[in-house]
Amino acid sequence: MNLIDALNWRYATKRMNGKQVPQAQLDRILEAVRLAPSSYGLQPYSVLVIEDRALRERISPVAFGQPQITESSHLLVFAAWEPVEEAHVDDLIELTAETRDLPAEALTAYAGAIKETVNGFASDQDKFQWAAKQAYLALGTALAAAAMEGIDASPMEGFDPAALDDLLGLREQNLRSVALMALGYRDSEADRYADLAKVRWPREKLFIQMPPA
Amino acid sequence: MNLIDALNWRYATKRMNGKQVPQAQLDRILEAVRLAPSSYGLQPYSVLVIEDRALRERISPVAFGQPQITESSHLLVFAAWEPVEEAHVDDLIELTAETRDLPAEALTAYAGAIKETVNGFASDQDKFQWAAKQAYLALGTALAAAAMEGIDASPMEGFDPAALDDLLGLREQNLRSVALMALGYRDSEADRYADLAKVRWPREKLFIQMPPA
Repeated sequence: MNLIDALNWRYATKRMNGKQVPQAQLDRILEAVRLAPSSYGLQPYSVLVIEDRALRERISPVAFGQPQITESSHLLVFAAWEPVEEAHVDDLIELTAETRDLPAEALTAYAGAIKETVNGFASDQDKFQWAAKQAYLALGTALAAAAMEGIDASPMEGFDPAALDDLLGLREQNLRSVALMALGYRDSEADRYADLAKVRWPREKLFIQMPPA
Repeated sequence: MNLIDALNWRYATKRMNGKQVPQAQLDRILEAVRLAPSSYGLQPYSVLVIEDRALRERISPVAFGQPQITESSHLLVFAAWEPVEEAHVDDLIELTAETRDLPAEALTAYAGAIKETVNGFASDQDKFQWAAKQAYLALGTALAAAAMEGIDASPMEGFDPAALDDLLGLREQNLRSVALMALGYRDSEADRYADLAKVRWPREKLFIQMPPA
C-alpha cells in the first residue's frame, strides 16, 4: 500500500476487536517513531508501550471510557520531557559523538546552540509546548507507519493528562503525557465511523499558492 | 522504498542543489498533508506553498539566511489558524454534512463537542498551541511523504515567526506561522550533514515497556 492509499484507508478507529498486533509489525511502527524527526534530533519525549489489559482498564476512566483504550492491542503514551534540561543535551552530544565517532569537543558549538534553544524559551510552558510539538511529529510519523502496516490506530487527546501522569507515575520521571495512540484492528460492525467518507478540506482551501513576489 | 528505509534515508537537508521537484511528486506530498490526521479532523492550519525564488530570497533573512530557503525547490509554510473560532467548526460541519450526505442537524451534538473544545482552552495561547500541534502532525506526515518520494526535506523552526507573518501578511488572514519545510534535493558535496550517521535514542531509552499492573 502506498502512503496516500494508507492515509485514505486509516481513520481514527473508535471501536476495536481486541485482536493482537504481531510483534514484528509493532516493532516496525516503533522503529518509525524512533526515526522520527525532531528539533536538533533531541526527541524530547518518551513513549510508553502498554500491552497489559489490566493496566489499560485502569487507564480507561481517565480517558473518559473511550473503548479503544481497552479494545486495542497496545496503547502508546507519548510523554514530553518536563523539564527539558541541559543534561539532556549533554546526553545527545555524547550519543552523537559515539554514533559519529567524533571527539565530544568537536561538538561544543553544536551543544551550545541546542542549550541556547533549551534555555531560551520565554516560559517553562513554552518550553513544554515545544517538547510536546516534537512528540506530535513522532505521533504523525507513528500514524503513517501504522497505516502503512495496515494496523488501525486511534490518536487521542481526549484524556486527563494530570490524572494519567498520576496513574503512571510520570511526574516522578519528569514526563508529562501529551497524546495517546491505540493500536489494533477496527471492529467494522461496532464502529459507526468505519464506513464513513473521510472529511478533509479541499486543496484550494488548505493550501495557499503564493504568487511571485 | 518502505517507510523505515525512507526514514533512514532522509535527514534535515541543509544544502540543496536548486533542482525542481516534479509537480506530480509535489502533489502527492501535498495530498499526504491534506489527508493528515488532526483533532476532530479540523486541520486548523493553512499551508503556504512558495515556489517563487524572489519571494524565497525575501524570506531568507527572517530564517537567518539558512541556505535551504533559496536552494530548495519549494518552501512550505505551516501556519496555524489564530484564533480558531466557532465559524471554523461550522465550516467543518458543513463540509462533513456534504461529504457524508447527512443533514446538518444530524451533526448538532458533534458540532457542540468540537466547539466545547475550541472554547474550552484556559488561554488564547493554549488554543494556539493546540492548533500548532495539529500542524505538527501534518508536518510529520509531510516529512514521511517526502521521504517516501525520495525528495529531500528540511523541517525548520529556526526563523522569526512574527517577521515572517509580517512579510507574508499572515496576521491579516488570521494565520501564524509555526514551522517551515523546504523541499528539494540534497547537495551531497556542500552538505556536511549528508553522509553523517543518523543519531537517534536507542529503543531502550526512547520506549518504556510498562509491566503488568
